[in-house]
Amino acid sequence: MEFTVSQIAGMLKGTVQGDGNEKINMLGKIQEAKKGQIAFLANPKYEHFIYTTQASAVIVKKDFQARKELTVTLILVDDPYSSFTLLLEEYHKAISFQKSGIEEPSFVGKNVTTGKNIYRGAFSYIGNNVTVGENVKIYPHVYVGDNVVIGDNTILHANVKLYADTKVGSNCVIHSGTVIGSDGFGFAPQEDGTYKTIPQLGNVIIEDNVAIGANTVIDCATLFGDSTIIRKGVKLDNLIQVAHNVEIGKNTVIAAQTGISGSSKIGENNMIAGQVGIAGHLVIANHTGIGAQAGISKSIKEEGQKIIGYPAFDVKEYFKSYAVFKRLPDLNDRLRELEKKIAQLNSLENQVEKVGGDE
Amino acid sequence: MEFTVSQIAGMLKGTVQGDGNEKINMLGKIQEAKKGQIAFLANPKYEHFIYTTQASAVIVKKDFQARKELTVTLILVDDPYSSFTLLLEEYHKAISFQKSGIEEPSFVGKNVTTGKNIYRGAFSYIGNNVTVGENVKIYPHVYVGDNVVIGDNTILHANVKLYADTKVGSNCVIHSGTVIGSDGFGFAPQEDGTYKTIPQLGNVIIEDNVAIGANTVIDCATLFGDSTIIRKGVKLDNLIQVAHNVEIGKNTVIAAQTGISGSSKIGENNMIAGQVGIAGHLVIANHTGIGAQAGISKSIKEEGQKIIGYPAFDVKEYFKSYAVFKRLPDLNDRLRELEKKIAQLNSLENQVEKVGGDE
Amino acid sequence: MEFTVSQIAGMLKGTVQGDGNEKINMLGKIQEAKKGQIAFLANPKYEHFIYTTQASAVIVKKDFQARKELTVTLILVDDPYSSFTLLLEEYHKAISFQKSGIEEPSFVGKNVTTGKNIYRGAFSYIGNNVTVGENVKIYPHVYVGDNVVIGDNTILHANVKLYADTKVGSNCVIHSGTVIGSDGFGFAPQEDGTYKTIPQLGNVIIEDNVAIGANTVIDCATLFGDSTIIRKGVKLDNLIQVAHNVEIGKNTVIAAQTGISGSSKIGENNMIAGQVGIAGHLVIANHTGIGAQAGISKSIKEEGQKIIGYPAFDVKEYFKSYAVFKRLPDLNDRLRELEKKIAQLNSLENQVEKVGGDE
Repeated sequence: MEFTVSQIAGMLKGTVQGDGNEKINMLGKIQEAKKGQIAFLANPKYEHFIYTTQASAVIVKKDFQARKELTVTLILVDDPYSSFTLLLEEYHKAISFQKSGIEEPSFVGKNVTTGKNIYRGAFSYIGNNVTVGENVKIYPHVYVGDNVVIGDNTILHANVKLYADTKVGSNCVIHSGTVIGSDGFGFAPQEDGTYKTIPQLGNVIIEDNVAIGANTVIDCATLFGDSTIIRKGVKLDNLIQVAHNVEIGKNTVIAAQTGISGSSKIGENNMIAGQVGIAGHLVIANHTGIGAQAGISKSIKEEGQKIIGYPAFDVKEYFKSYAVFKRLPDLNDRLRELEKKIAQLNSLENQVEKVGGDE
Repeated sequence: MEFTVSQIAGMLKGTVQGDGNEKINMLGKIQEAKKGQIAFLANPKYEHFIYTTQASAVIVKKDFQARKELTVTLILVDDPYSSFTLLLEEYHKAISFQKSGIEEPSFVGKNVTTGKNIYRGAFSYIGNNVTVGENVKIYPHVYVGDNVVIGDNTILHANVKLYADTKVGSNCVIHSGTVIGSDGFGFAPQEDGTYKTIPQLGNVIIEDNVAIGANTVIDCATLFGDSTIIRKGVKLDNLIQVAHNVEIGKNTVIAAQTGISGSSKIGENNMIAGQVGIAGHLVIANHTGIGAQAGISKSIKEEGQKIIGYPAFDVKEYFKSYAVFKRLPDLNDRLRELEKKIAQLNSLENQVEKVGGDE
Repeated sequence: MEFTVSQIAGMLKGTVQGDGNEKINMLGKIQEAKKGQIAFLANPKYEHFIYTTQASAVIVKKDFQARKELTVTLILVDDPYSSFTLLLEEYHKAISFQKSGIEEPSFVGKNVTTGKNIYRGAFSYIGNNVTVGENVKIYPHVYVGDNVVIGDNTILHANVKLYADTKVGSNCVIHSGTVIGSDGFGFAPQEDGTYKTIPQLGNVIIEDNVAIGANTVIDCATLFGDSTIIRKGVKLDNLIQVAHNVEIGKNTVIAAQTGISGSSKIGENNMIAGQVGIAGHLVIANHTGIGAQAGISKSIKEEGQKIIGYPAFDVKEYFKSYAVFKRLPDLNDRLRELEKKIAQLNSLENQVEKVGGDE
């Protein structure tokens, strides 16, 4: 992929100042870019780099005024940052959609329907009665169980595992090693101390525009007809645990290594940090913010709260308490000191009582 | 799979009230079931659904007295919940054992012995000198290293990885992405600040009736002849870390994302919640309960304790302390207030001393 | 592999006392070893086992004086423990390098260069423009994306996934299920509450002598030309999360289930325990020790600190505070008690004031 500066300026609806014929084949940062790369300048703090950059072109705001002589070619635009982001996206799209066609050996079961223009990597496995949409990328070592449905433009990276009956929407990206639809953790205690397995018969539904990181696990629902549900636009990071019958509301973002226990319902537009633990059967209101490593043991009913700690409460209150926690030995000493003084005063009191008694 | 209501009633040793020829092909919940499904009614709270359910049959207690007209066919049994559970189990068994036969390509090394009626999925890999019992299901992308032994009726879901020398018992289920037998984390510090790898030469033994979730890791023991051991009936959830030389006692249940450090011995019938951390070289007594996110830094000698916190102590005590923790800034203020008052009283004391001195 | 005691003594530069023709085919522990195994005695506590061991030979210190009759053959050396470790290493090397050659089916893309003596397991996948060094072991189900470079003597266990553009140095070991180069977690919030994916275009660089456990995830850097970097000699355990643009300094050791957020720079020779969380954009000084389950929310500037807690501070201070935390309800009671007494004293003060006022 190689473009001229003029071609890129055309894409960005910007104007060229300098040599429009410079060849661009990569994006870079202004302080590190080399010949053939295009960079951008948005933050004035970085302005000095523009006079020394090795980049072949720099995207700048259209009212940019150079304070020294410039050798680099410029593309003048309204908003350099979003122009650069647009280029990144175009480049990423070009990369992502490079893969296409069928590699062999791969395994395809009976009654499989696939849309046009899919990529099916070597050693990928597709079970029976599977439906795959258009432009779907199934990387090597992906496992797609029976009766799975996958929407258009979805990317399953190497080694994603979808158990039978899973439904994945359109425009989703799932990263390597993630497991969708494994059995929920359900065991009934028996009188002899052993546990009996409760069959897990539901499935997982992942709606459109969901992104899921690597080595995350989402368990299926317990009962027939029930589903663990990841709503539209949810973004899950790596190594997250989502137990059976959980529902995650739309546009909620969850960072790495967080775990959600069975049957909890997470609201919309939550921001949940890393290593958080959420107990089972809770309901978390919309727009809740949960700090790293927090443990949530009660439902959150009021929207817009920010909480932390174990069990979690208001972030500001937590940090106030924690500031005192750090000084607890000192507090303890002060308390002991007071106890001594009071004891002295008490013995004094006796004297006073005598004095008063003499009145 | 399709049965008549009468056939199911026969299985459950119940009696039919209504049309015994109704066809049943699925299980469902009474409030959601559709034609062709069978549901159950155990909780009186749900009784009103029985008058409107679309299910083809409902399992009820034999003394059930309808308070309105009923259109649905009933199966009368002693205990509707356990009857339904029995049906679930039968159904699950039918599903689980659907898979059978050999899919190609798959890889089988030298000196491999397999029992009858196994399933070996495409792209599964079996190394040399491996023994596989009867009715074992080896899903696609499973890796079985050299010298591994797998007992009867065990299910290895897609992409389970068993390193060389691992032993897995009978009636075990291991979910996708779980790794058994990877190297323990052993490195000897050198004088120049680097670390030398300590070879990890033991193995992992998993006894009968063990269930292990997805993306969990169990490391091998360090020395020859030593084993990391998961005892009979243990249930491990997803994303759990079990380090080298750990032993987990029988019927212990551990929730997701918990980690156990090297050489710790966990007792029998423990219930360990999610995201718990257990330090190395500890011994945890039988019947211990450990709360979510707890950190265990000392052995637990007395059986039957329930602990939480970091480091963990008695659950009730922890929550009492935590209740005060939440009010620490207030405590601090009260302490400061007292200090002021005492200071005043002390200056008063001087007056009193004068008064007293005047005696 | 079978050696005589004399051959082993030659390797260890020791001398034989007893039958040098005994056959040795395995290593064992002195208290458990059987015929054909060699053990060692370093700790005097274990001396009594030497008189009863079934081992065919025991490695002892050259000045060892038996206090009873001995039947076992001895190898006398300067340092029994390091001699035994040397044997372990040799054995481990022999085992590790057993695997060689090409198993089929495996997939190799265009422009792939491989050094001599590699192992390429069945169902492994190598993309386009990949360079693989000498003696590299690529186990079954490994995925190597386009443009990846792998140094000499590196071992990729079954199912390791390397995304496109990853660089792995020499003498590295990566365990099963680990994912290197997945997308960083980058999403830009939009006005309508949805998130837009920020394309992740950097890569991951793993330097020489790095060991990585199972099911760990290392995300790629966000921008072109940027890398998430794991420096020489780093040892990472299982189920660790390393976010985009993180750098881990050389010889740093990190235990299982720890997570490092985006763009943080970890110093050299850190020792980081399990389940630790490190926030984004921090700098952690060299030789820092971080206790289990700690949460790091600020940069650590001074070298050699040991910290714990959330947020973390000095380990000793933490445990002092925590000791008081455990007695907080008691502290609260004592404070309340003092408040009562002060109230009494205050009413007394009024009396005193009267008394004093009478002066």
